[in-house]
Amino acid sequence: MMPNPSAAGTWLANRAPASQPNLAETMAEMGRRAREAAAVVALAGPESKNTALRAAAKAVRASEVEILAANARDLAEAEGEKLAPALRDRLALDPKRLEAVAAGLEAIAERPDPVGRSLARWSRPNGLNIERVAVPLGVVGIIYESRPNVTADAGGLALKSGNAAILRGGSESFYSSRALVAALADGLRAARLPEAAIQLVPTRDRAAVGIMLGMSGVIDIIVPRGGASLIERVQRESRIPVIAHLEGLCHTYIHAAADPEKARRIALNAKMRRVSICGATETLLVDHEVARTILPPILADLHAAGCELRGDPQVLALHREVKPATEQDWRTEYLDAILAVRIVDGIGAAIAHIERFGSHHTDAIVTEDTGAAERFLREVDSAIVLVNASTQFADGGEFGMGAEIGISTQRLPPRGPVGAEQLTTYKYLVRGNGQVRP
Amino acid sequence: MMPNPSAAGTWLANRAPASQPNLAETMAEMGRRAREAAAVVALAGPESKNTALRAAAKAVRASEVEILAANARDLAEAEGEKLAPALRDRLALDPKRLEAVAAGLEAIAERPDPVGRSLARWSRPNGLNIERVAVPLGVVGIIYESRPNVTADAGGLALKSGNAAILRGGSESFYSSRALVAALADGLRAARLPEAAIQLVPTRDRAAVGIMLGMSGVIDIIVPRGGASLIERVQRESRIPVIAHLEGLCHTYIHAAADPEKARRIALNAKMRRVSICGATETLLVDHEVARTILPPILADLHAAGCELRGDPQVLALHREVKPATEQDWRTEYLDAILAVRIVDGIGAAIAHIERFGSHHTDAIVTEDTGAAERFLREVDSAIVLVNASTQFADGGEFGMGAEIGISTQRLPPRGPVGAEQLTTYKYLVRGNGQVRP
Repeated sequence: MMPNPSAAGTWLANRAPASQPNLAETMAEMGRRAREAAAVVALAGPESKNTALRAAAKAVRASEVEILAANARDLAEAEGEKLAPALRDRLALDPKRLEAVAAGLEAIAERPDPVGRSLARWSRPNGLNIERVAVPLGVVGIIYESRPNVTADAGGLALKSGNAAILRGGSESFYSSRALVAALADGLRAARLPEAAIQLVPTRDRAAVGIMLGMSGVIDIIVPRGGASLIERVQRESRIPVIAHLEGLCHTYIHAAADPEKARRIALNAKMRRVSICGATETLLVDHEVARTILPPILADLHAAGCELRGDPQVLALHREVKPATEQDWRTEYLDAILAVRIVDGIGAAIAHIERFGSHHTDAIVTEDTGAAERFLREVDSAIVLVNASTQFADGGEFGMGAEIGISTQRLPPRGPVGAEQLTTYKYLVRGNGQVRP
Repeated sequence: MMPNPSAAGTWLANRAPASQPNLAETMAEMGRRAREAAAVVALAGPESKNTALRAAAKAVRASEVEILAANARDLAEAEGEKLAPALRDRLALDPKRLEAVAAGLEAIAERPDPVGRSLARWSRPNGLNIERVAVPLGVVGIIYESRPNVTADAGGLALKSGNAAILRGGSESFYSSRALVAALADGLRAARLPEAAIQLVPTRDRAAVGIMLGMSGVIDIIVPRGGASLIERVQRESRIPVIAHLEGLCHTYIHAAADPEKARRIALNAKMRRVSICGATETLLVDHEVARTILPPILADLHAAGCELRGDPQVLALHREVKPATEQDWRTEYLDAILAVRIVDGIGAAIAHIERFGSHHTDAIVTEDTGAAERFLREVDSAIVLVNASTQFADGGEFGMGAEIGISTQRLPPRGPVGAEQLTTYKYLVRGNGQVRP
């Protein structure tokens, strides 16, 4: 199924843009086209956006050979740069992953239209009728790393929410992203929507990011989806508002009234299902009342699954493979098969630990005590707070949003998973019959 | 009623803070106290917050002599600095204005509690129940200019929404604000809430603003309420997220199907009721079909009311007092008794003018044609879009929010009037029974 890389190279060379004599000029032109397209897609009806998304899914399937060839070219170039195996895996597409990309676009089409929803409506004593309705953000600039599927998710979600997107993918996935954007463009054309509604920065030149960050007044919102250094750069350099995804230092707290079996299943899944995602648990807190009974089998499971364990002195006494934890462990987002484990003196101490060391992303309690559960839900100040469930559910798809563009850790909305609905804002419509203000 | 300024001086000297040997230290200590207070007021019930607001209103009334004395001291010092009459008027309190401050706090207490509202709730096929609930922002830093009533509005709204507030008022109103904050503290004490929930920066030293802007991690959100230079400074210097209030370049468009009487009443009110507020109309657009019939009496009214008129060549022909407008007039937020008037060729041209020159704050159409009204509501991309009503309704109080902290012109929420509800964010509560992610 994987096509010959050299044939792919030829095919792509035909589509490659001319060399960039003036990147700033190219970016400015993208910006102008994006603004024009944004005005059109903002007013496009649900039918037309969904037609585009479904046609794009079809085009992804029909272009399988081309897209996989483009991906092979990215992988071949990555070979030279000695990409880490994990990064290489994130970059690689295959027919199954590509089908998931197409199905993802169709799932976005299935969701209710987020634009034009009436969010609130009330009347005033003077007869004015006031309505708050959801509207698109405008032009969204999305800067992300090597996973090419983000290109389709981000482009699809932006379109669904009536925005124009300027996508800047990781340079390692440049050819894959370009081939996917070509399929998205096919979808837009099929629905007679402007192709410029989803544009990819047409160069791997890293200077393009700096130019994007300076496009205040053209790009309305920047969504950086990447590591801390990218997000810091965006916040430092840009005056454009940001939807930021920072650290996920997530906790699972096993309360005194936890069901031992649920605790065991959840702790293992929360840490080990995938260790590199932001919703992976990094610190396990266990109530001192049940630590001796509940914790040993959990530690055994985790050790057997290949997880390194770092614990406080009480935890050290419960399993011979535990290494001593330092305070730095409570502050570390490992994104790896390492877990910090701490015994705490009740729910108050657990909440205080989470407040002190956590990142307000996602935290869970395991308990059969409804009062404790509700207290945890109320007092833990995180974007997502769970009871009796794995922190790995911190995901827009798992929330039923169809797809996500990331998890926002900022306080102002959007907070938590960012799907199409979260890529809208609102405006007020006020209907009167001649009212003037006294 | 106005007490003797020198007596006021003595009274205030007793309450004055010691000189500031180290402003940075003072600010850091305020920040620590604010964070502690934020954790308490975030969980405070509606009763307790409303008790505090009502007790604060009582304390404002009971401290009338002290507050007016403090205001007299501000006014006396302003005398030396030769404040413009308009600024002096904004600074001055009298018994009537003070009663409005007290009543404003009571009005905030009457409003529904914005914290803990269930914003959405759904279940997933795996049995997870997901709920989005409104929660406070945390510590809100509010930087504003000379009107002392903002001190009470901002403090009251922050408390109602479960936030702690660090207030930095204009240095001209320092003593007035300090006396008002003392009344708010009385209210907090009466409800056994921490006084540090509403703190005023205890110095007129302008360096305090710079320190506030650097308090990332302590202050969650900055609300600058002031001129463009303040907001630009905040956006340039601070990494703390901002709720920004920029320009209000508002339009009123008189459509071909406008009712002439409504058009006349609305145009005069939208411009002249108060010329210095952000919701005042700055440009009047008139459909060419009706300009000759509808516009002359409107121009006569405005001229009679003391408004300077600047128009395009067609407008010049309709009234002898009109001066020629330049393109710069379409771009100017006068905040004064000056109106730019332009004849446009239909609703499309009106919307295009607003898109090109407006500030996406507040824009109105006057028409009896429902289709035109709905098109204007849909296509004009402003925080507030009105039909047959004055743009001067752009105000949280007029929207029924009890009070407002400003009008946000940013695209991401909160957009438009910012009341207590808009000073909240949300989190997701996920209730499971042992779910793990496959």
